[in-house]
Amino acid sequence: MKTLPIKSNDAIRALMPVDRPLHGGNLVWAAELANCSPHAILDFSASINPLGPPASAIAAIQTTLGGLTAYPDPNYTHLRDAISEYHGISPDYILPGNGAAELLTWACRDLAALDTVVLPTPAFSDYTRALRAFDAAIATVCLADFQTANLARLQPQSSSTAGLLLNNPHNPTGQLFARNAILPLLEQFALVVVDEAFMDFLMPEAQQSVLNWVEQYPHLVVVRSLTKFYSLPGLRLGYAIAHPERLKRWQQWRDPWSVNTLAAAVGQVVLQDHEFQQQTWNWLQETRPALFQALAALPNLHPLPGAANFLLVQTSASVPPLQTELLQRHQILIRDCLSFAELGDRYFRIAIRTAAENQRLLQGLADLQS
Amino acid sequence: MKTLPIKSNDAIRALMPVDRPLHGGNLVWAAELANCSPHAILDFSASINPLGPPASAIAAIQTTLGGLTAYPDPNYTHLRDAISEYHGISPDYILPGNGAAELLTWACRDLAALDTVVLPTPAFSDYTRALRAFDAAIATVCLADFQTANLARLQPQSSSTAGLLLNNPHNPTGQLFARNAILPLLEQFALVVVDEAFMDFLMPEAQQSVLNWVEQYPHLVVVRSLTKFYSLPGLRLGYAIAHPERLKRWQQWRDPWSVNTLAAAVGQVVLQDHEFQQQTWNWLQETRPALFQALAALPNLHPLPGAANFLLVQTSASVPPLQTELLQRHQILIRDCLSFAELGDRYFRIAIRTAAENQRLLQGLADLQS
Repeated sequence: MKTLPIKSNDAIRALMPVDRPLHGGNLVWAAELANCSPHAILDFSASINPLGPPASAIAAIQTTLGGLTAYPDPNYTHLRDAISEYHGISPDYILPGNGAAELLTWACRDLAALDTVVLPTPAFSDYTRALRAFDAAIATVCLADFQTANLARLQPQSSSTAGLLLNNPHNPTGQLFARNAILPLLEQFALVVVDEAFMDFLMPEAQQSVLNWVEQYPHLVVVRSLTKFYSLPGLRLGYAIAHPERLKRWQQWRDPWSVNTLAAAVGQVVLQDHEFQQQTWNWLQETRPALFQALAALPNLHPLPGAANFLLVQTSASVPPLQTELLQRHQILIRDCLSFAELGDRYFRIAIRTAAENQRLLQGLADLQS
Repeated sequence: MKTLPIKSNDAIRALMPVDRPLHGGNLVWAAELANCSPHAILDFSASINPLGPPASAIAAIQTTLGGLTAYPDPNYTHLRDAISEYHGISPDYILPGNGAAELLTWACRDLAALDTVVLPTPAFSDYTRALRAFDAAIATVCLADFQTANLARLQPQSSSTAGLLLNNPHNPTGQLFARNAILPLLEQFALVVVDEAFMDFLMPEAQQSVLNWVEQYPHLVVVRSLTKFYSLPGLRLGYAIAHPERLKRWQQWRDPWSVNTLAAAVGQVVLQDHEFQQQTWNWLQETRPALFQALAALPNLHPLPGAANFLLVQTSASVPPLQTELLQRHQILIRDCLSFAELGDRYFRIAIRTAAENQRLLQGLADLQS
């Protein structure tokens, strides 16, 4: 394991064409390049469930509009109760946030207080942003093929307190780590933060969440998103599951009304929308293998097997020109992986969408290669 | 000027009856005490415009619902352009936030990096929360009657760098400081943060905003709210006006999608809703003096003159029992001032509402005294 000065966002930007966005889902940027309206873009770059938002979510928003004249309940009692019931965890262990991204910021403040933070790479670039925001000493570990067995390579340096920031399933590879492989890490690290933003896309029996361990391990933090599975990233909603003392501290770090009233109302209903959940699991179980095989059948493309609602694809040619052509000729946006510095320009990531939309992507990719 | 260890939120809570909220607008708490639905409470505790939200805001929300499936534009280009046009300030000097409260957190991180932070008291309790979140050395200065002339008492300690966190108009007194009295403070302090959350309630010719000075003074930060005047505190929207380098730093401290898509859309339209703005100014100009005089005519109540959309009222008797009786007998919520430690239990704050609602409050207060 080498402790490396991680490239700053500015350094990453310097490697990129001017104004290339750091994150997926930047439709304003894409629409300018494609010379069309942002609404006309078929977005494979942000890993959002194409079946949503569920009708229950939109109904909750409509019902709640009249309540916007009041401040949100700073305790978020009803929302925490709903999450508590869904996971079977006491509400004291739950803190809603303005998207999982807000909570990762506070998790990184806790991580940064340790001597080092072990960060498996390639990693979501916002992890680095949040860790650097609190001057963390980052020790990157390239997990290469991201096999569960490799988790054993994640070890703190001797004679120092170390934290670990893990993503499961992993973005952008889609790799799922077995929860039992995470258990030994709890013995080795002073703080383990597991970002499970995409875990709910797995069928319940396949999930490898460690969230039920938080009551036993006060140095374990789990962060979850509610807006990828329920297709509302514009609304911002996530939650952390961790020891109550830690969450009380985080609440003193941020203002009392971090989650807007509409997001809080949506969170309460969607967790009970079992029909939408089942539809999503059924859709993903069918479309992922179909898309994987079709991509693998195209020349010069090598998709990696993944457990989540996106696929990482290795290419023989440089991705940015391919991305631009897909945008300009087909108004299709794929996610280049330039912000994952270890991957370079020969990978792209795509969300799995409906069968018909996936077909449009496949035709676009085939068209460019013909 | 004395440097005092400020009471922590926990210490303030210890002075309060169990579970008394730190902030106004906590309808869940009030409804439990009044044994009614939160919607049944007539809320004078949060200083929100009773005329809103404007129809333009609700229309913008409805039009934008379909866009919630996409991430917000991390540059918030259209929103920043709208604010830029409204104030005549370059978009580079503007950073939208998840409520003014989020931006005050980052402003306090900058303040906390200085040797001391001068905080005029009584002060909004979230200032202390945010300053303590970053281990600020807080030097409180009681401005007593909050006359503009007293601003001269705000001076940094010699041989140290000091910041200043000022609120104009001041909450909870309603006092308005002349902008020319703020000018000398810019010479004395290394960083001056002015929270102008209620400034837009003043008619344009009466406003004393310093926001047009930010291009000249890189150590000046102005924070504004858009959800008090436009009656959407549940939606969360504010903005900071400050030097671009400072705002870029803050953006690295927080995640890229802090403002939800609906709030961003609302911000773009309400700043152009001149009809709603004029209605609000007309309403306040009529109702504030009427309410002030009616309160002053009641025995044992002494309202303080104020420039904003709320009034601070001194009482002869302790406020918490009065507050509870108003809730239980009339479902009316007023703001006790226990969280403003310097004020103690003989003050309450009320939002100015419509003439009919103000009349209900006056009758309730008269009823309790009879």
